Amino acid sequence: MKKTLLITAGDPLGIGPEITVKALKNPRVGRVCRAVVIAEPQSLYRAGFTDDLADLIALENFSPLPAIPQPSAEAGRISFQALRLAMKWALERKLPLVTAPINKQSWALAHVPFTGHTEALRAATKKEGLMMFISGALHCALVTEHFAMADLPKILTKNLIALRAKSFYQTLQKMGFKKPRIVVCALNPHASDNGQFGKEEKCRIQPALRALQKEGIFMEGPLPCDSAWAAHRQGKYDGILCMYHDQALLPLKLATREPIVHITAGLPFVRTSPTHGTAFDIAGKNKADPSSMIAAILTAVRS
Amino acid sequence: MKKTLLITAGDPLGIGPEITVKALKNPRVGRVCRAVVIAEPQSLYRAGFTDDLADLIALENFSPLPAIPQPSAEAGRISFQALRLAMKWALERKLPLVTAPINKQSWALAHVPFTGHTEALRAATKKEGLMMFISGALHCALVTEHFAMADLPKILTKNLIALRAKSFYQTLQKMGFKKPRIVVCALNPHASDNGQFGKEEKCRIQPALRALQKEGIFMEGPLPCDSAWAAHRQGKYDGILCMYHDQALLPLKLATREPIVHITAGLPFVRTSPTHGTAFDIAGKNKADPSSMIAAILTAVRS
Repeated sequence: MKKTLLITAGDPLGIGPEITVKALKNPRVGRVCRAVVIAEPQSLYRAGFTDDLADLIALENFSPLPAIPQPSAEAGRISFQALRLAMKWALERKLPLVTAPINKQSWALAHVPFTGHTEALRAATKKEGLMMFISGALHCALVTEHFAMADLPKILTKNLIALRAKSFYQTLQKMGFKKPRIVVCALNPHASDNGQFGKEEKCRIQPALRALQKEGIFMEGPLPCDSAWAAHRQGKYDGILCMYHDQALLPLKLATREPIVHITAGLPFVRTSPTHGTAFDIAGKNKADPSSMIAAILTAVRS
Repeated sequence: MKKTLLITAGDPLGIGPEITVKALKNPRVGRVCRAVVIAEPQSLYRAGFTDDLADLIALENFSPLPAIPQPSAEAGRISFQALRLAMKWALERKLPLVTAPINKQSWALAHVPFTGHTEALRAATKKEGLMMFISGALHCALVTEHFAMADLPKILTKNLIALRAKSFYQTLQKMGFKKPRIVVCALNPHASDNGQFGKEEKCRIQPALRALQKEGIFMEGPLPCDSAWAAHRQGKYDGILCMYHDQALLPLKLATREPIVHITAGLPFVRTSPTHGTAFDIAGKNKADPSSMIAAILTAVRS
């Protein structure tokens, strides 16, 4: 049976409508799911949408949009309203949600009280969530997200590491890994070489992993992050837990040619998205590559 | 004319002698240089050394070495004496120096007053040096080396960034880049998104780059490190300046299949080395891959 999922087409002036339509026309997507698309209809039809592709929830009664792709309060209102509706449905009906990119400046112009999807999702679900990225066989989760490096030693507590690690373990289990093998990155270079440069390995990460062991959850590490990534890429582990943003995104973007999918795990519903932005510079030109959107949809269906 | 260079064969119980001999037998190495090898002779001859390959400075009068590869005070004394002799010659005759791996535990057992090559080189030359890595067309330099991440905000000053950046620029010039195009990594995720998470971009890195501009040295950045690495890999820049150890080593090990060469630049002589250790587990078994040693020699000759 085909799975039902929700798609928000994102900012109507960006490449969101185009990659949504292109993804819906992809045969693999068509085979595995029936989508409900929440979008401003004109931008979607202009991108080639036809009514056989998906059920369309059309957002109406907005003022005219600028002719040229740019940050716009009206576009911000549209993409935020689409998300609000989608989150409500996703919560009520436990449907997976795929979000095409919104523009953060447009949200600010529209006085949306959130900086992005993740914050809005947290407020709507009252759950922290877990930031994850998937690309081919690579599964990566973050302990901390958008923080100054100077704040890491304060934020990166034993409890937070254990919380995120457990959430990652459970998410991989839901994805079909019965006993997920996870490798955990160190914070410091050479995993601090036995405390020579930094104490977080000994005082935060190791205690967190020991606490998980008591619950029967075993993870390898902390390993120096280059060794951990090399081992994950070689297939020795099902997933890798990273301490900070660039420890995940930097290698991920270099290690893989497959599209990268962003997942917010640990919510009452699955949410995925492509990892690029609205790309105003190529919007409306039929140049957008839908591969990350297609991967986001297929991942949402599988999860 | 063939260039003369110095090679220390490193720890006699490790793979140093084997990769030295294998590298000397490589036709490209033979074509471009004449090497002077400083080594314990038995381990070198056992690895297949013949007198036509290089001039040998044999270190004699040591006690017998353990039969099985392991940390050993005697081996530590040998590899340190080789380095001391090599540094003296390199300084006196301005010869490039290639160092095969030593074992840090053996140095500690031998009461060598340095933890590794870099510290010994600093003491002997009274220069700070610049830690660099080269792999194929990738040229990468580090502002900070082996430090706890918690100490970065303190260490990473405007002055240090400018010092390292300038040293990198001058090193690339010596390598033949007339006006090196260098991209500089940010410290924080998304280069702090305009100060949203972290101040180092605005208060440390940008002022350092502005100070260099006054000297006619232009560098791009600070860019988010994933963008900077992607751009360097695509060939848009001749070199990339990284703020911390893992920002360099993590992508480098994933971005390239070419051997990685470690260079200490900014010394009175060029010093290169392979990026692996003594590998006691495979020592004496003719299994060691000499490609990183060969690349280290060829890089030293070119520099």
